[in-house]
Amino acid sequence: MIYPSLLQKLIDFYKKMPGVGDKSAERMALATLDLPENEIKEFAKNIVDSKIKLKNCQICGNLTENDICDICSNPNRDKNLICVIEDYKSVFSFEKVGNYKGVYHVLNGLISPMDSVGPEDINISSLVKRVDSLKNPELILALKSSIEGETTTLYIKKIFEDKDVTISRLSYGIPMGAEIDYLDIITLDKALEDRKKISE
Amino acid sequence: MIYPSLLQKLIDFYKKMPGVGDKSAERMALATLDLPENEIKEFAKNIVDSKIKLKNCQICGNLTENDICDICSNPNRDKNLICVIEDYKSVFSFEKVGNYKGVYHVLNGLISPMDSVGPEDINISSLVKRVDSLKNPELILALKSSIEGETTTLYIKKIFEDKDVTISRLSYGIPMGAEIDYLDIITLDKALEDRKKISE
Repeated sequence: MIYPSLLQKLIDFYKKMPGVGDKSAERMALATLDLPENEIKEFAKNIVDSKIKLKNCQICGNLTENDICDICSNPNRDKNLICVIEDYKSVFSFEKVGNYKGVYHVLNGLISPMDSVGPEDINISSLVKRVDSLKNPELILALKSSIEGETTTLYIKKIFEDKDVTISRLSYGIPMGAEIDYLDIITLDKALEDRKKISE
Repeated sequence: MIYPSLLQKLIDFYKKMPGVGDKSAERMALATLDLPENEIKEFAKNIVDSKIKLKNCQICGNLTENDICDICSNPNRDKNLICVIEDYKSVFSFEKVGNYKGVYHVLNGLISPMDSVGPEDINISSLVKRVDSLKNPELILALKSSIEGETTTLYIKKIFEDKDVTISRLSYGIPMGAEIDYLDIITLDKALEDRKKISE
């Protein structure tokens, strides 16, 4: 055995993290030992607390320490504008942009017949209930452009077809700053199809 | 605030790790939440235990959970062959190679007049005491080839000059598999100077 067993256990834990290999895990474990004892004790408490206390918001499914998340309980957020996302991680991406003033709905999955995931397995019924209680709501479907994403988008669109609900989705196109020469043809095709008139 | 505060604290901790930026720290914190509760609790215990229980071996300075490390207490290791290293992390590198059958001595630093680190600030006196108790010992000085490393190497060599101690150091040369065209000139110069006759 090369490492003392306690150190080996730290290395094994860090190796479970995404993108962390043997060498990085060793460096992280050794760096951990260099931290002051109080920081380590605080982290040990936080990591257990996070696992136990963080749960899903009862309204939108976002991660929260309370029953209702900060976004759903914020009176300045537009409750009629709901961004529908696959998992709660997308909330952080949108919040970092900082321009979105609506709320979210976490589906916690996508419809995938291949993996036997049907509409009843993801949070669609709670979305329907939520939307039914609103007046002239808008749903922004922000799901990925995979088969599962498209299937789920179409399914949700169909549910609300005859209701007074505006349904939109994120635009497809060229990522800002991207070189056109290196773009994949599907993205380029979408960007052509969805071209916008330059306003004068 | 974009993240729940407990999650933010996990991210802040992971960001202290070497080579971990904002994005990786976020991924690691989220991956942590996906782990089962028992694994997280065990890790929380291990990380505190590591900090409290891991200490320096009383003989060589290597990291250990006991008073004497596994290497020093191993009867199969040659106690007359001592590899002198800057810090305990080098032990892991040599042990991974697996061919070294001697023991170690961790200096815990290098002589550096620029940083006011003198010979008395690192574990040299304990090395002298240790070597004095041995018969025909060999010291392998495995210190880096910086000014501080060379100064420390020379200093230790001088101490044992008149004593019955063999002193060697790691060979310099071309790393295995390296392209000669891309080598720095100092390494190439060393490799020329230290060339070895090809045995027949």
